Amino acid sequence: MKVIVIGGAGTVGKAIVEELGRRHDIVTVGKSSGQLQADITDYGQVQALFKRAGKADAVVVAAGIMALEPLAGMTPERFRVGLNSKLMGQVHVALAAQHALNDGGSITLTSGIDVYHPINHATNAVTSNSAVEGFVRGAAIELARGIRINAVAPGLLTESKEAYGHLFPGFETVAASRVALAYARSVEGAQTGQTYKIW
Amino acid sequence: MKVIVIGGAGTVGKAIVEELGRRHDIVTVGKSSGQLQADITDYGQVQALFKRAGKADAVVVAAGIMALEPLAGMTPERFRVGLNSKLMGQVHVALAAQHALNDGGSITLTSGIDVYHPINHATNAVTSNSAVEGFVRGAAIELARGIRINAVAPGLLTESKEAYGHLFPGFETVAASRVALAYARSVEGAQTGQTYKIW
Ligand SMILES: NC(=O)c1ccc[n+]([C@@H]2O[C@H](COP(=O)([O-])OP(=O)(O)OC[C@H]3O[C@@H](n4cnc5c(N)ncnc54)[C@H](OP(=O)(O)O)[C@@H]3O)[C@@H](O)[C@H]2O)c1
Ligand SMILES: NC(=O)c1ccc[n+]([C@@H]2O[C@H](COP(=O)([O-])OP(=O)(O)OC[C@H]3O[C@@H](n4cnc5c(N)ncnc54)[C@H](OP(=O)(O)O)[C@@H]3O)[C@@H](O)[C@H]2O)c1
Repeated sequence: MKVIVIGGAGTVGKAIVEELGRRHDIVTVGKSSGQLQADITDYGQVQALFKRAGKADAVVVAAGIMALEPLAGMTPERFRVGLNSKLMGQVHVALAAQHALNDGGSITLTSGIDVYHPINHATNAVTSNSAVEGFVRGAAIELARGIRINAVAPGLLTESKEAYGHLFPGFETVAASRVALAYARSVEGAQTGQTYKIW
Repeated sequence: MKVIVIGGAGTVGKAIVEELGRRHDIVTVGKSSGQLQADITDYGQVQALFKRAGKADAVVVAAGIMALEPLAGMTPERFRVGLNSKLMGQVHVALAAQHALNDGGSITLTSGIDVYHPINHATNAVTSNSAVEGFVRGAAIELARGIRINAVAPGLLTESKEAYGHLFPGFETVAASRVALAYARSVEGAQTGQTYKIW
């Protein structure tokens, strides 16, 4: 299969590329990194990306930021950070991919453990990630041509413990390689509308 | 208690006003209807609403629209309809209410059955409503001063069957008066971070 991995140079993305790269042709994408460049917050760039990448069988997104800030000081503008990036970035990819992918292709998006285990200062993350999982459930029954869509909800990666561990007190971490398996399960499996929770 | 009901003139809102009005002082709000006017998609108007309404113990939102359209023709602009209204409209209310309500107050938002039972042409609705429920789970553990937050996920109202029944093939409907009880459960109860599913 030809698999486009958006965020392929990131902590999650590198593990996905390693796992899927064993069996498939991978095209890595980033805003500035990767074989191809596209900012997923810009729909025009996402549409152009699928044209440049050519016909593919799967697209995986492991990218998107959120505003990890106290709710007490949250403004609508700051709240839009997660909606514009983590949510609409991934929605842009799915809206374009439904037309660009080969028949029987798949779309795999990324949410996060906070949907099920909220942490402090994460209201924008829980909202954005819950929306991504809702999008997957809603889109799964609407997609045509046998195209499937799933999400992966990773726990805190062991590789990200130093950067984000303080936000997740008492949480066990999960190896990036285990999280990567869930993306393979989505791409190579047959289910649709699922969220694979890996922690 | 003094309870602000945004969307109080609507199909869901009228039933809420009838139920809560038996025991509480109600202030109804709409874009053009109600005792006070505010467009919840405009944060400035929401902040001004809480100033004009004065100190209250609870705010309930039964308002917000979404784009019920096929995913195949969905554009990012159309997808923003639900995010701007159903999601950000209610987020605006909650962000302002966390500072404006009395200690121990409550915020009650509205999602929908589609979160759990997706229907055709509802990807924008499932996404927006899932986001609302995520917001509630995330905010519940962050809110200060004993302020609580819950959502109500109504099934298709019996009173709305003529307008929307064609979108919900084979779904049983639920009386508005039953749905209204769930809003009372949120306002008068003690739980937080819950979604009451009524269908
Ligand atoms: N790390 C964790 O523990 C963890 C746990 C749960 C969920 N997640 C989720 O997994 C996703 C990836 O996280 P990560 O830790 O791997 O992040 P990361 O290490 O910062 O990597 C992000 C990757 O995405 C690309 N990217 C960022 N913004 C982009 C944009 N607007 N358009 C296109 N590409 C963009 C980056 O490329 P450039 O640098 O070239 O822009 C980079 O390759 C995030 O959504 C995160 O919320 C992560
Ligand atoms: N009816 C159902 O079967 C059903 C089922 C599940 C969920 N829901 C949800 O419940 C909510 C209410 O539905 P409904 O059927 O009661 O709708 P409705 O009958 O159309 O009533 C909507 C109410 O909200 C007000 N409103 C609309 N936009 C507003 C805005 N931007 N700012 C402030 N107020 C606004 C309207 O007042 P003005 O006319 O003055 O603007 C009206 O009072 C919606 O979010 C809907 O998705 C409904």
